[in-house]
Amino acid sequence: MRLQPGAGSRRAQLEEQLREAIRGGRLAAGAALPSSRALARELGVSRGVVVDAYAQLSAEGYLVARQGAATRVAGAGPASASSPGAAGAAADRPPRFDFRPGGPDVSLFPRAAWLASLRRALRDAPDARFDYGDPRGAPELRAALARYLGRVRGVAADPEVVVVTSGMAQGMALLARALLARGARRIAVEDPSSAPGREQLSANGLDVVPVPVDADGLQVDVVERLAPDVVFAAPAHQFPLGVVLAPERRAALIDWAARTGGLILEDDYDAEYRYDRAPVGAVQGLAPELVVYAGSVSKTLAPGLRLGWMVVPESIAAATIAAKASDDLGTPVVEQLALADFLERGELDRHLRRTRGVYRSRRDALVAALSRHLPEAVPAGVAAGLHLVVHLPPETDEVAVLARARERGIGLYGLSEHRMKPGPPALLLGYGRITEPAIDVGAAELAAAVRYAA
Amino acid sequence: MRLQPGAGSRRAQLEEQLREAIRGGRLAAGAALPSSRALARELGVSRGVVVDAYAQLSAEGYLVARQGAATRVAGAGPASASSPGAAGAAADRPPRFDFRPGGPDVSLFPRAAWLASLRRALRDAPDARFDYGDPRGAPELRAALARYLGRVRGVAADPEVVVVTSGMAQGMALLARALLARGARRIAVEDPSSAPGREQLSANGLDVVPVPVDADGLQVDVVERLAPDVVFAAPAHQFPLGVVLAPERRAALIDWAARTGGLILEDDYDAEYRYDRAPVGAVQGLAPELVVYAGSVSKTLAPGLRLGWMVVPESIAAATIAAKASDDLGTPVVEQLALADFLERGELDRHLRRTRGVYRSRRDALVAALSRHLPEAVPAGVAAGLHLVVHLPPETDEVAVLARARERGIGLYGLSEHRMKPGPPALLLGYGRITEPAIDVGAAELAAAVRYAA
Repeated sequence: MRLQPGAGSRRAQLEEQLREAIRGGRLAAGAALPSSRALARELGVSRGVVVDAYAQLSAEGYLVARQGAATRVAGAGPASASSPGAAGAAADRPPRFDFRPGGPDVSLFPRAAWLASLRRALRDAPDARFDYGDPRGAPELRAALARYLGRVRGVAADPEVVVVTSGMAQGMALLARALLARGARRIAVEDPSSAPGREQLSANGLDVVPVPVDADGLQVDVVERLAPDVVFAAPAHQFPLGVVLAPERRAALIDWAARTGGLILEDDYDAEYRYDRAPVGAVQGLAPELVVYAGSVSKTLAPGLRLGWMVVPESIAAATIAAKASDDLGTPVVEQLALADFLERGELDRHLRRTRGVYRSRRDALVAALSRHLPEAVPAGVAAGLHLVVHLPPETDEVAVLARARERGIGLYGLSEHRMKPGPPALLLGYGRITEPAIDVGAAELAAAVRYAA
Repeated sequence: MRLQPGAGSRRAQLEEQLREAIRGGRLAAGAALPSSRALARELGVSRGVVVDAYAQLSAEGYLVARQGAATRVAGAGPASASSPGAAGAAADRPPRFDFRPGGPDVSLFPRAAWLASLRRALRDAPDARFDYGDPRGAPELRAALARYLGRVRGVAADPEVVVVTSGMAQGMALLARALLARGARRIAVEDPSSAPGREQLSANGLDVVPVPVDADGLQVDVVERLAPDVVFAAPAHQFPLGVVLAPERRAALIDWAARTGGLILEDDYDAEYRYDRAPVGAVQGLAPELVVYAGSVSKTLAPGLRLGWMVVPESIAAATIAAKASDDLGTPVVEQLALADFLERGELDRHLRRTRGVYRSRRDALVAALSRHLPEAVPAGVAAGLHLVVHLPPETDEVAVLARARERGIGLYGLSEHRMKPGPPALLLGYGRITEPAIDVGAAELAAAVRYAA
């Protein structure tokens, strides 16, 4: 291994060379790396360069670092992929490689920074925070969210109408109850869209009607025809198709709401992950009185925190807050205060900068692996988020492809489970939870499954 | 000040003398105490004796200790009570002395021990805990709760049927939905009982019917006549009357459930606070298949944590878990893991031992103050909990007493807001949130309010 002066930073060169050595199999799974001190001496660089490179490759999943032990090449590399994917019983075992969409890599959760925020929260909280509190949430967090969402997502947020929730699922349940109390009943939902999200709305008493999505997002002209009370959409990054609502459609949707007294429920679930250009701002910023804005930390930090928020128009604020109070009297307070601290200190921005790099690398690796193993596939929805879409030839049996992949030890997921009306076959490939070394092998396996089922 | 050999421990003597000096006004509000070192030298005792006494009196609210500054006599002592309670606008201001029942003293929340548990939780949690999890809650906490509730409350708890909730309010909402799904509709509720609790049940679709409570608790013969689907009761410490369900009534209630296929919903909300004898075990331990057992940390640690639990019979487990999943996918995980650690390390027992002493002193001070200022009153429900009941002469206008007290700057609460059917006048005096120095003045003021309104 040799680092060249002038060919990019030494750290970047070292990272690249190590990555290539692992991908190419020259560094086998389980192999111990030299200590950072020894390698630094050998390469004639400062030890910090090696420490940083090891840390980056650990974050990407190539290396496994354990305190007090040698850093090793991770086990899920190509070397371990030779075990044959036995059919039958294999379908019941957890997959070797899992392309499940809809979540971040929880091993990247910033435990140390979160603990620091918890410590400050417990140190600084007034006693009154430990008592029954405002059902909207702690004032510290509502203020911090208003600033963060205004700065990062262009949301026009008054802390008075921010409601902290225990995640998006609860937010939708509360909103459904508030909408019913207001007399609303019909909610138009993107088709395809998250199946559990729709179930949450209908379980809480709303009538869910489908609106097709094309390359420009939700078809607003269909909304006009259906005349619902509310439209539920993810304008910045549609799930699962990954498209962005086109500017003229955004304007048309706002116009629809303004003319008819309708409401827009904006799901801004993973807008922070956009890799190739700046994220589109929230629709809410254009028409705060017509939009309920909803988000959470489930895609950026961890679903287990169960922390989300809504910014609600005045017209529905009282009913939403009453629903929250009746549901659980408010979200647990200590982690609210920790999130307030985390936001105010810029820790979420720092975490997003770091993880955006990790996920971009994984996305690039997945796109490259698909072009190698399944060159006829054209990935869509690659610009943002934690998953991409692969449209299959129309005659492909999506269910058969998924079943075949499971037999080969690959967790593979399709579009049809999220559709309300039948549509052409497609795969959803989440790269949030799968590390780079696994991506290439996983892509080879899934290509085999597609070919076998075709 | 002089400590006598043989007249109780030196620490206890010192505490008592300081307490008396503050109560009697010899040590005025705001007065600085000598340093622990100086006072120890003066009294010829070890410094630890003085440090412990200062700490205990700080916990009781007589002293205010600040790191790096002199320990001072707290401000709410008798000296500040001379300001006249102006009528009118005074009723809108926060009360000078607040006898609000239903909560602990949140200033006693064990911040350092809780932070230590959070630190261990973040250090030890498997990555998977940060992902979407079991809607019942983290397995670590369900196991720890099963052990704790079995040991301390005699609950027969299998971790498989423990459901972690975001507090009692959510628990009741979930249960109401699960009961409706099972076809249950009528729920018999103790009269009087917590008004918000009843509203939670009826807001979620149940028909609430009242059952009177006497000195032996819920009148089970009335339950037989009403033939409800479910009975909601607090057998260990009835709210608000403070009575215990008599052994023959416990047996009769279980017999009713077994004969009719009814369910018992056992609210064990503050059973840990019993001062004069061992707490009564939970009814659930006698008939786990007939009882839904529910509790929370709201009275023992802090309502702001929003952490509770239910132990549910098999017959209703699936519906309850489905309601929880549909409500919020599960309670936030980090504080669940912290509570598991807190329970397993005996920290809750330690905290209860400490706070039980504080609350017992407050209760004793309140009983003594009532006998001084309102000798005709006989306090009831004094053996347990964080409040007691004072029955007023039948002709007293309870509403007028409360209003008069508010004018005098006293937060006073009556029984009538918790009654379903009208009944004789009574006061609920919470001593959880009021420090000892404030109790005597507060009792004098409330006695004046009672006399004025009579």
